[in-house]
Amino acid sequence: MRKTVIGVMGPGDEASEINKKDAYELGREIAKNGWVLLNGGRNVGVMDAVSKGAHDAHGLVIGILPFNDGADASEGVDIQIITGMAGGRNIINVRSSDVVVACGIGAGTASEIAHALKIKKPTILLGTGEKAEAFFKEIGPKIVITAKNVNETIKLIKKIIKSLSGIYF
Amino acid sequence: MRKTVIGVMGPGDEASEINKKDAYELGREIAKNGWVLLNGGRNVGVMDAVSKGAHDAHGLVIGILPFNDGADASEGVDIQIITGMAGGRNIINVRSSDVVVACGIGAGTASEIAHALKIKKPTILLGTGEKAEAFFKEIGPKIVITAKNVNETIKLIKKIIKSLSGIYF
Amino acid sequence: MRKTVIGVMGPGDEASEINKKDAYELGREIAKNGWVLLNGGRNVGVMDAVSKGAHDAHGLVIGILPFNDGADASEGVDIQIITGMAGGRNIINVRSSDVVVACGIGAGTASEIAHALKIKKPTILLGTGEKAEAFFKEIGPKIVITAKNVNETIKLIKKIIKSLSGIYF
Amino acid sequence: MRKTVIGVMGPGDEASEINKKDAYELGREIAKNGWVLLNGGRNVGVMDAVSKGAHDAHGLVIGILPFNDGADASEGVDIQIITGMAGGRNIINVRSSDVVVACGIGAGTASEIAHALKIKKPTILLGTGEKAEAFFKEIGPKIVITAKNVNETIKLIKKIIKSLSGIYF
Repeated sequence: MRKTVIGVMGPGDEASEINKKDAYELGREIAKNGWVLLNGGRNVGVMDAVSKGAHDAHGLVIGILPFNDGADASEGVDIQIITGMAGGRNIINVRSSDVVVACGIGAGTASEIAHALKIKKPTILLGTGEKAEAFFKEIGPKIVITAKNVNETIKLIKKIIKSLSGIYF
Repeated sequence: MRKTVIGVMGPGDEASEINKKDAYELGREIAKNGWVLLNGGRNVGVMDAVSKGAHDAHGLVIGILPFNDGADASEGVDIQIITGMAGGRNIINVRSSDVVVACGIGAGTASEIAHALKIKKPTILLGTGEKAEAFFKEIGPKIVITAKNVNETIKLIKKIIKSLSGIYF
Repeated sequence: MRKTVIGVMGPGDEASEINKKDAYELGREIAKNGWVLLNGGRNVGVMDAVSKGAHDAHGLVIGILPFNDGADASEGVDIQIITGMAGGRNIINVRSSDVVVACGIGAGTASEIAHALKIKKPTILLGTGEKAEAFFKEIGPKIVITAKNVNETIKLIKKIIKSLSGIYF
Repeated sequence: MRKTVIGVMGPGDEASEINKKDAYELGREIAKNGWVLLNGGRNVGVMDAVSKGAHDAHGLVIGILPFNDGADASEGVDIQIITGMAGGRNIINVRSSDVVVACGIGAGTASEIAHALKIKKPTILLGTGEKAEAFFKEIGPKIVITAKNVNETIKLIKKIIKSLSGIYF
């Protein structure tokens, strides 16, 4: 019954072009694999790009919005969850995802990775940089893993989902 | 892009048989009208019944869960939003709904109606009793309305959605 | 070690003159009894009046603020707890209080009373009107009680605190 | 009117002996300087040690608790703010502090540092390790600073408070 949810976190205004390109591709692949995409829902940066990628591939997109209404939601979002909690919604993003992918880095994304490690949620780092990788591997060994590109990220998600469901190859 | 979301709130363990029967029917009708159902997600009372009604009619069901994981989610829920906020998630339920329906009454449901009126979200009372009706009409005139049965509730939802979209008959 | 905390809830902009006069007196009496005052912290209505009453009587005032900073805090507040959660902070107000007093009524205050009853927190209604009294006594029998004036409210608080501490006269 | 609040964040069960010794001293110094201490409120690790340090020096201690009641609060806490939000309360901890001190590191503390940097709250790192320092300086330049010991931490807090109040030497 319950659908598999992949959470993609990443910077808003400070997202790089590579972050946004990766996010769009990630969204497409998540949709094509039949998974639900969850993200922070805003119409900027990684949130906007990943939502549009999933939408263009006919996926279902859940946006967990920080504000009191949906005015700044990405057009790619199908279901707006309106928290009114600002950055307080970040922990909901990771709790509600079966696997968390961080695509790029910033302070908000760092809070999401940290919350994910705290609750032992499998987390993939893509394009977060060496310092983030070194730090998060220190505080979350065996929970966090690095991916080189979108293709590898999707392979890792598949592996994690199989392991969660108790099916090993 | 954005889907219309109908939130159905109601008691858990204290739900009456009538509340649960109404909730199941409401869920079915919401799904048949192509709306997304949102509710508190637990596997008891109105939450469970409305989720199963929508599920049986092939609708999409979002459960905003109070706990730290999905262990007590209704089997009718497709997408689990896991807040870890206990009753603190009640305000998210109403913020994320285009129309709120209270099906039965209890303290948790009362908090949801009150939050809905505070943010001026159209709210329909079904089977909440005379004292709830009198009180909520006092504090939320023009925002809250009473329905006699499921059929009338669905008609009111349609009317509200038309009005929100700026289409009047 | 732990100090006794009395929470006073009530309307902001819609507070009546009587609500504000009662709130100021309540604040004074709470401070004079050596209890900590907790409230929603804003610089309007009951929140402002009760904070100033307690402050003028040299009490300690905790404001649980809804916004992202303390810009709209009452001058009577000593400690600003800044939630950034808008009305989502209402449940924290009642959880953190040993006794809840509703002074006047509105949709926000109604959400606080309802949350309080849900978690079985002793709640006193002062000037909330007959319809609120009838409704909340229906959904929270034995938890909610009505007071006629500030004097009676303070007597009820004393009685509840004694009972919580296991001391009966 | 408003009191200056210093937030001290740090690990619970995983706190080292050095973290706890530093936290106790920090609590003492915060109290002796007349500042209010705010922390996560639990009866373990840095939270417990810093609360007791401040309490022993006759300071005022605010604990922002994650659970639904105060059962696991530190005995050093004077005012229990009971959020029922689990790790979702971490953002409230940093929002409500004028200066944030991280004493030791773990995933929860990392989420607090990240939330602090996101909202540009001055943050001091004490004993968080080289990888945390390198990472947080990358994502929060000019907001985060490292201290070598408790003495230096207190000097930095004084400097930051002066700068916030617009008084420069």
